[in-house]
Amino acid sequence: MKVIIIGAVAAGSKAAAKLKRLKPDWQIIIYTADNNISYSECGLPYYIAGTFKDVHKLVIRTPQDFKKQGIEVFTKHFVEKIYPDKKQILIKNLQTKEEFTDNYDKLIIATGARPNVPDIQGVNLQNVFTLRTIEDGIAIKNAVLQNKKAVILGGGYIGIELLEAFVKQGLYISLIQSSEAIMSIFDNDLAQIIQKYVIQKNLEQVKIINNQTITSIEGEEKVQKIILSDGKEIQTDMVVISAGIKPNVEITQNTGIKLGETGAIKVNSKMETNIKDIYACGDCTEKYHIVAQKPCWIPLGSTANKEGRCCALNVSGQTDEFEGVLGSAVTKYFDFTMSMTGLTEKQALKYGFEPVSVIVRKNDKAGYMPDVESIIIKLTADKNSKKILGAQGIGQGDVDKRINTLTSALLSKMTIQEFFGNDITYSPPFSTSIDPMLTAAQNLMNKFN
Amino acid sequence: MKVIIIGAVAAGSKAAAKLKRLKPDWQIIIYTADNNISYSECGLPYYIAGTFKDVHKLVIRTPQDFKKQGIEVFTKHFVEKIYPDKKQILIKNLQTKEEFTDNYDKLIIATGARPNVPDIQGVNLQNVFTLRTIEDGIAIKNAVLQNKKAVILGGGYIGIELLEAFVKQGLYISLIQSSEAIMSIFDNDLAQIIQKYVIQKNLEQVKIINNQTITSIEGEEKVQKIILSDGKEIQTDMVVISAGIKPNVEITQNTGIKLGETGAIKVNSKMETNIKDIYACGDCTEKYHIVAQKPCWIPLGSTANKEGRCCALNVSGQTDEFEGVLGSAVTKYFDFTMSMTGLTEKQALKYGFEPVSVIVRKNDKAGYMPDVESIIIKLTADKNSKKILGAQGIGQGDVDKRINTLTSALLSKMTIQEFFGNDITYSPPFSTSIDPMLTAAQNLMNKFN
Repeated sequence: MKVIIIGAVAAGSKAAAKLKRLKPDWQIIIYTADNNISYSECGLPYYIAGTFKDVHKLVIRTPQDFKKQGIEVFTKHFVEKIYPDKKQILIKNLQTKEEFTDNYDKLIIATGARPNVPDIQGVNLQNVFTLRTIEDGIAIKNAVLQNKKAVILGGGYIGIELLEAFVKQGLYISLIQSSEAIMSIFDNDLAQIIQKYVIQKNLEQVKIINNQTITSIEGEEKVQKIILSDGKEIQTDMVVISAGIKPNVEITQNTGIKLGETGAIKVNSKMETNIKDIYACGDCTEKYHIVAQKPCWIPLGSTANKEGRCCALNVSGQTDEFEGVLGSAVTKYFDFTMSMTGLTEKQALKYGFEPVSVIVRKNDKAGYMPDVESIIIKLTADKNSKKILGAQGIGQGDVDKRINTLTSALLSKMTIQEFFGNDITYSPPFSTSIDPMLTAAQNLMNKFN
Repeated sequence: MKVIIIGAVAAGSKAAAKLKRLKPDWQIIIYTADNNISYSECGLPYYIAGTFKDVHKLVIRTPQDFKKQGIEVFTKHFVEKIYPDKKQILIKNLQTKEEFTDNYDKLIIATGARPNVPDIQGVNLQNVFTLRTIEDGIAIKNAVLQNKKAVILGGGYIGIELLEAFVKQGLYISLIQSSEAIMSIFDNDLAQIIQKYVIQKNLEQVKIINNQTITSIEGEEKVQKIILSDGKEIQTDMVVISAGIKPNVEITQNTGIKLGETGAIKVNSKMETNIKDIYACGDCTEKYHIVAQKPCWIPLGSTANKEGRCCALNVSGQTDEFEGVLGSAVTKYFDFTMSMTGLTEKQALKYGFEPVSVIVRKNDKAGYMPDVESIIIKLTADKNSKKILGAQGIGQGDVDKRINTLTSALLSKMTIQEFFGNDITYSPPFSTSIDPMLTAAQNLMNKFN
């Protein structure tokens, strides 16, 4: 049996490693256009920040590691076409430009995603970057060390992580976003608090510009300035575009492989596409949102790993199902954590729920502990079913663990009353005797009564 | 309507405050033998450690605060008897020694618990302490500041918290316990790791003596030495007995109020005893273990608060149910956290399950983050039902949040496979792309296959 895997960052490499353990005698081949396989994209901002020095720490397994396990790896090989009828793919060696075909018994598409680059003048100038691969990370870090002024386009997860990295490296940064506050994936009430924190934390180094886009990037060879939609100019030494990502699905053209309504590859819970013996997993696939009970596209490394594992099990002949995602995510800006799971209030509205929310500001541990910090929890439930829809938590205290108390509750579709019965661990260095999550649940119950 | 509440540390004070908000016109009277009401017992070790200076920070509400809200509070008043037929209680003023009666429409027993003091010679000598009230805390701290050598009897939660406090205050401590390792509420494999950490952390100041009890405490007025069961003597300036606690249930004698099989007051999920109009809540009551589906007695401040609230709602005429506990708990020894929820393996056996467990040692965050720490998770499920029974987590890394991801899962009686579908938040400063809890779940699933 011969399995070909296209792409090998998180999902592809996980699928390959798992499948080789399940089926040591099968032939497993990876083709990837990338120079590296099996690395942590999520760690790149911390490399740029100087949190650690050696970028290779982000690499979990090298092609050599895989070869030792009997997996064949072809880096810098771009898969151009899939011919499902012939069970064949067309590959281009990016170094020699040579094209050749290979045949599979089963195919796994794990082509991932790539940055959205808006179609504006000057995006190809030197020192205009996106962040996705290890090479991107190295290039941005080199530019950071040689320059003083940077522009970041987009204030989402990667935008805010790069902002911290650039502040730590001593840059002066203008962060430009089309929304009215940074981290606009959160509800606006919380996004406003995040924005306030970011501004006061590094007032001198950081300038946040809301409700604007970049209309052009200008310079000779290298970028020298950008022009905003309101006509203003900003001088800069470098630009990073972190304005979202999109799935790499071009490979499915003319193959009959269906995309979902989100534009990512449609798979069932076994990671099967609609074409027999063709599977897909990771950032290139559409996911099922367990709370919304609708398709969604939330591409994350943790999900990609699980999908890769599930895919390998099914390819091997076992049965495994990946039920979907909750939209759980976390990041931080210096000591300020931002975390969410389930639906925000605005997402809940979009999905047709009648969300009712409370916001609770409370200590993260007993008030007499010297390292006590304030945290803010927003908890949302559906007016009709009383089921929890989601939670958002922000603040300098211990937030992410509060959000994680809720993930299992969302998975089992708990009502707010049921969740209130939760027995969360307590002692003064860790929590308040009624945990902030339970206070939020209690306040929400009161709103329903 | 007149409600009398006996005792007011956590459950009683919570019930009083909640009931006054629900029924502002009702007469609410608290009688307590204690000097204080509404304080955090759990915070006393941190006061002794010098983590904060003012012991009154532990007081949430003073009798004056309560009086302002219209609640009558009588401290240093010991309730000696309840006469359910007459709806009357007999009270002794501990200062004047005067006895008097009072009548109630509804009665709430919240008498709490007190330390187990073994019946050994010399327990009444000066500088032999137990830790329960604020006065106990002040007395121990004064002794700590004036002395050099201490003995702690018992290595449970309070024992280990006092050990940290005493180390921080520069004492030399012998901790004596009848079990074979400290924190023997954990399974022995983890308790051994905890013990190893404790010993190597403060080798010079701390001596741990297992499998021993104290047979006598000796000295003139003040304690000077203790004698162990193996005959050895230990010179010491002070002794703290932290060998467990027992519920204060003597008040129920000759009242017809039933105790449960654990010896604590039996209540239903509405906090009602078997006698009409007599309720009980907090550490003096028996609890229902949601995982074991059996009565248990796990007295904790967080539970007491919830029970107090539930009790007030039912007393007021509303309906509220407290479903029970999961046995969730957490503490730390310096930077080493110990946390659990549900049943340990040995508890599971005792309750008649067929537990299957895995132990996972894994990083608490991405390996390239400079503050990465190793944590150890033990996850236990039932062989027949595949349902999760419990988890224990220890280590210098972020453990308690892992345990908390499981509390809702236990509440909704998830199988290990269902829990594996959990979407736990991930980014490099917070977790590994497959969270340690999910790795544990995966390894446990593999054991079942």
